[in-house]
Formats: sequence, structure tokens, C-alpha cells
Amino acid sequence: MTTPTTLAEFHTALAGATGPDEAARAGAQERNGQLTKPPGALGRLEDLAIWYAAWRGDARPRINSPQVLIFAGNHGVASRGVSAFPPEVTVQMVANFAHGGAAINQLSALAGAKMSVHPIDLETPTADFTQGPAMSEAEVMAAIAVGWEAVDPDADLLVVGEMGIGNTTSAAAVAHALLSGEPSDWTGRGTGVDDAGIALKTQVVSDGLKANPGAANDPLQALRCLGGRELAAMAGAIARARLRHIPVILDGFICTAAAATLESAVPGALDHAVAGHGSAEQAHRRLLEHLDKEPLLQLGLRLGEGSGAALAIQILRGAIACHSDMATFAEAGVAGG
Amino acid sequence: MTTPTTLAEFHTALAGATGPDEAARAGAQERNGQLTKPPGALGRLEDLAIWYAAWRGDARPRINSPQVLIFAGNHGVASRGVSAFPPEVTVQMVANFAHGGAAINQLSALAGAKMSVHPIDLETPTADFTQGPAMSEAEVMAAIAVGWEAVDPDADLLVVGEMGIGNTTSAAAVAHALLSGEPSDWTGRGTGVDDAGIALKTQVVSDGLKANPGAANDPLQALRCLGGRELAAMAGAIARARLRHIPVILDGFICTAAAATLESAVPGALDHAVAGHGSAEQAHRRLLEHLDKEPLLQLGLRLGEGSGAALAIQILRGAIACHSDMATFAEAGVAGG
Repeated sequence: MTTPTTLAEFHTALAGATGPDEAARAGAQERNGQLTKPPGALGRLEDLAIWYAAWRGDARPRINSPQVLIFAGNHGVASRGVSAFPPEVTVQMVANFAHGGAAINQLSALAGAKMSVHPIDLETPTADFTQGPAMSEAEVMAAIAVGWEAVDPDADLLVVGEMGIGNTTSAAAVAHALLSGEPSDWTGRGTGVDDAGIALKTQVVSDGLKANPGAANDPLQALRCLGGRELAAMAGAIARARLRHIPVILDGFICTAAAATLESAVPGALDHAVAGHGSAEQAHRRLLEHLDKEPLLQLGLRLGEGSGAALAIQILRGAIACHSDMATFAEAGVAGG
Repeated sequence: MTTPTTLAEFHTALAGATGPDEAARAGAQERNGQLTKPPGALGRLEDLAIWYAAWRGDARPRINSPQVLIFAGNHGVASRGVSAFPPEVTVQMVANFAHGGAAINQLSALAGAKMSVHPIDLETPTADFTQGPAMSEAEVMAAIAVGWEAVDPDADLLVVGEMGIGNTTSAAAVAHALLSGEPSDWTGRGTGVDDAGIALKTQVVSDGLKANPGAANDPLQALRCLGGRELAAMAGAIARARLRHIPVILDGFICTAAAATLESAVPGALDHAVAGHGSAEQAHRRLLEHLDKEPLLQLGLRLGEGSGAALAIQILRGAIACHSDMATFAEAGVAGG
């Protein structure tokens, strides 16, 4: 599968992706029923293992090669003062990722995941979307390609995360374009703005929708007009994973907003994804409810960087360890199977 | 500290335990504020790290030696038909633990924890508590001693789990004795009984309280009269960990009921413990609310064996990895610290 070069090609590729392996799902369900535990006693771990088995096409799967991809971008709307941090923090944090000092470095290492960071044209922020589209089609496709090509075709699990000062505002605008509601439904404190900051973000989101009327009717146009390079790259990576049958764990609000553009464009496009955590941003909960995804963790994280999803790798690892390594009733000589 | 030989000695030992290290707590709080993330952005992971640092007396702690202890016992009330499984499953599952085939084996290995299983007099079930006390003082002290002595004094994290056909009924009776309410507040499906089974469990709990009037006024008598050997051993292990400043992650309903006897006997006795998961048993939620402990995970597990707590080790590991290994703003040259 070559990298798509237009939004139309991207849509076509996503729409043509095959679904999970139903024979593997059935095999995993059968195995699950034979393990030395009462039926259903491992709760969501059982569902997770069966879901993972179906997508991997293996009734008794392993997680050997999880991948964490961090994308960074700068946003024209940051100049509107929507973040508590200055834009130069994006490049500083990219250096921190590269040197191993950020939260995601520790959580990736703990999860045994290969992590890489992909800054995208940091010196060229997207255009201020209150004045028109954030990106041209060439720009959004270049960012999608960064994500698409960053996915290791041999990975067996993918987490995507982001860094970009101002990107909760971009995500709020994307979510508003996809799901309407009020602009204030989608804005929150981000990494730490006050009430006046939230009011400003809400106004910026409202202005962004007005300046980009085509975004409300077309999810991929919403990504182009209101998103950012790191959101587009995350969407590209998640789409590539869908084609490769690599299960994905979604991170917080910004990751989920990027992912939601795919589901809105092609229903079912996120069937290979679970929600890693529910962030403290209420807009994230709203978005996850729309996607009908119950987060694995709810620990009040609101960092981004893929941090909640990387932590959730451990939950999936626990599910797979139980599923694939427990004894069956017959093997263990336990009554009641 | 020698192993206590009477309930009075046990109570005295617990009441004399020292609290966490406030200097380490302050040091951990200071470090937390300097890490390369917005304030509070790691949510509960930050609270967990600071709590762990205080109990370990180290502002920048590590988790090197987590321990998982599984205790098994048989229950006289099992003869009343309160479980969906026959009592011989207890000894069969002990063999499964010993051979590495159970869920807790996989989850302990994933967490890098040393696990051991301690069957306690399986050939001698406790007395049926609807007819009088489940255990004599000598019997309950022998079981407490098993737990007390099983704790590795050099462990830096403890999970205790259990196996015992009929023990959700025992735990329900203990919880009812500690916190009153209605018998039906504390009974649930356990590992899979139907509505008639729940009604029977509720009757058995009610009968147990009537047959042991002293249990309602004395938490450690509740443990003796209504508990089981594995509950007493868990209580003994958690108490020993309190004295050794070894943080504990509580598992499901049965573990939490055993632990709650300590908190009822000596308020603050569980300050060194967090709730690993909220099980599908509603009685567990009620008990955790009483203890004012918000579970780290809510994944619908209802297996026991320490499974939910062992999975939650990973969350604590994530918290400590971020706290102790992230760069500070100064180290990383990031603005905004």
C-alpha cells in the first residue's frame, strides 16, 4: 500500500480496509471459556484479549513489538493566546522526548515499547484557522504521510501521542466540526488555562468554524482546516494501522479528536482501536461516548504525549498474558470447566 | 517484631505502628512540581508517587521487590451451598497456582513480582459460622501468623490475594459485622451464583451475625468468628506490611473485607494501602467508599487471587517511573517550570 497523496485517496484506502479475523475471534472465545477461572471473572480483560486476537488473526496472540509514535506540530492559533505555555515549549519538549526526559519516555520503556518522536515543520506553524484553513491539501497530506510512514509494518500494537502548544484548541474545533453541539462543549483547561482562557478558546473555536464552513460537512476537511500537523500525522498512523491490522490504543482528547475524523469519514474505521484512558477534559468523555469507547483507565491524566495510552499497554499486556498463558481446566485438572 | 500470638497483641502491634515519612513526602512533592509537565497533568499518578515516596521514606523511590502472596482456606459455610463451585476446587486451584497456570501467575510475572501461594489447613475447613465462631482464637492467630511471616521484610510493595470456595459469603458476613446495613447490602454473585444463590448467601450472612453477636462490636472478633483462614492471613500480612512501611495494593471484595477489619480496629491502619481495582461486586464498591479509597482500575474483574491488585502494580510502576526518572524543567531546558 503506497502512501496516499490526496484526501480522496486517503479516504479510499481507509474505506477499503479489511475487518478482523472472525475465525481467530471464535478460537479466542473458545479458549477463553476453557481457562481456569469462572466465566467472565476477568471482566474487560477477556473482551480485550478476544478483540486483540481477532485483529491479529491469532486465537492465542502475543504482544512482541508495541510501538509508540509521538508527533509534534505548531499551531497558528497559539498566537491567539489559547495556551498557558509559549509556543517555543513545543520544540523544547521535542528535545526532552529525544533525550528521554518526558513522561512518555518512562511509560514507553515500562511498556517495552519502541518510541520515536516526529517533529513536523515546527518552524512553520499552521495558519491561524480563525482566518481560513489551517493547512492546504498538500500540507495536510505531507503530515498524514509522516504518520503513515512512521508505522512499523511489523508492529503488533500502536500508541500515537502528540505535543503542540495550542492543540487542545485545534482538537476542540475539529470535534465541534464533527459532532456540532456548542463550541463550549469542546473546550477545557488544556494544560492549565483559567476561566478567561477557556472563554477565549471557545471564541476561537467558534470563529474557526465560521471561517471554515466546509469543515462541518466533511471530516477530512475538518482535519485539514481546523487540525494541525500532529493531528493529521496521528490520523495517518491510525489509518495505516487499520490497514495493517495493528491494534491501536487511543490516548487523550487530541489523539481521540484526530482519530474521530477517521470514524466520521468511514464508520468502523476505529474498530481496531480501544480508548486507553479518559482524560480530565470533559470534551474527551463526550467524544469517547460518541465513539462508544469506554476508556480502560480513568486516572485524571491530561498530559497528552500518548501517556495514558502507553500506561494502558500494561492493561492489554495483562489481558493477553492471562488469555494466552493461563492453564485450561483440563490442563490443570480443576473441576468446573 | 515477633509474631503476635493473641488478638490483643495483634491489636497492640497495629496501634503502635509509625506513620509515613513527612520529609520524604515533602521532598517528593517538591520534585513533582519540577518535572517537565504542566502541574497536575499526570493526575492520580502524581498522588500515587508522593504517597509511595512517603511510605518508603525516599523522595525519589524505586520499586525493586514487589511481592504477591496468595492464601487459601476452606470454609465450613461452603457446605451450605453458597458457591457455584465445589470445595475441592480450592485445593485444585492451589495446585494450579503452584504450577503457574492461574491468572495471578501471569499477572505477577508481568509485574515482575515474586509470588508464593500459602494453603492453610485446607483439610480442616473453618466451622460453619451460622452455628458459632468460624475459628478459635488459636486458629485465627495461627492463620494471621501465616500471613505475618510470609511477608518479605525487604519487599517494597505487597499484594495479597486469596482462594477459598465460599469466601465471598465469609467476606460479606465480616463486612456486615463491621459496617452493619442490611445483609443483602453485602452479598453478590461471587464467582457465579444465581438469584436463588444470592438469597441463600444473604440468609447465611444473617444467620452468621445472629450466631456470633460479639462480632458486631469488635472488628478482630468479626475476623475470627466470620472470616476464614485466608482472610486472617491477608489481615496478618497487611498489618505486618504496615509495621514495615511496605505499601499495599488491595485486591477485590474479599481482600478488602479482611483489610477493613484492621481499619475498623485501628483507624489509619490502611493508610499504607491503595485500592487496586473496583470489582464487579457492588459490596466491594460500598466497602471502598467506606474506606474512602478510589480504585485505580475498574475493569469488571471478579476473580480474586490478587489479580486486580497485581494488574494495578503496573499503574504504580508507571507513577514511580515518571516521578523518579523524568527530567526537571531545569534539566531539560524547558520553559514554564
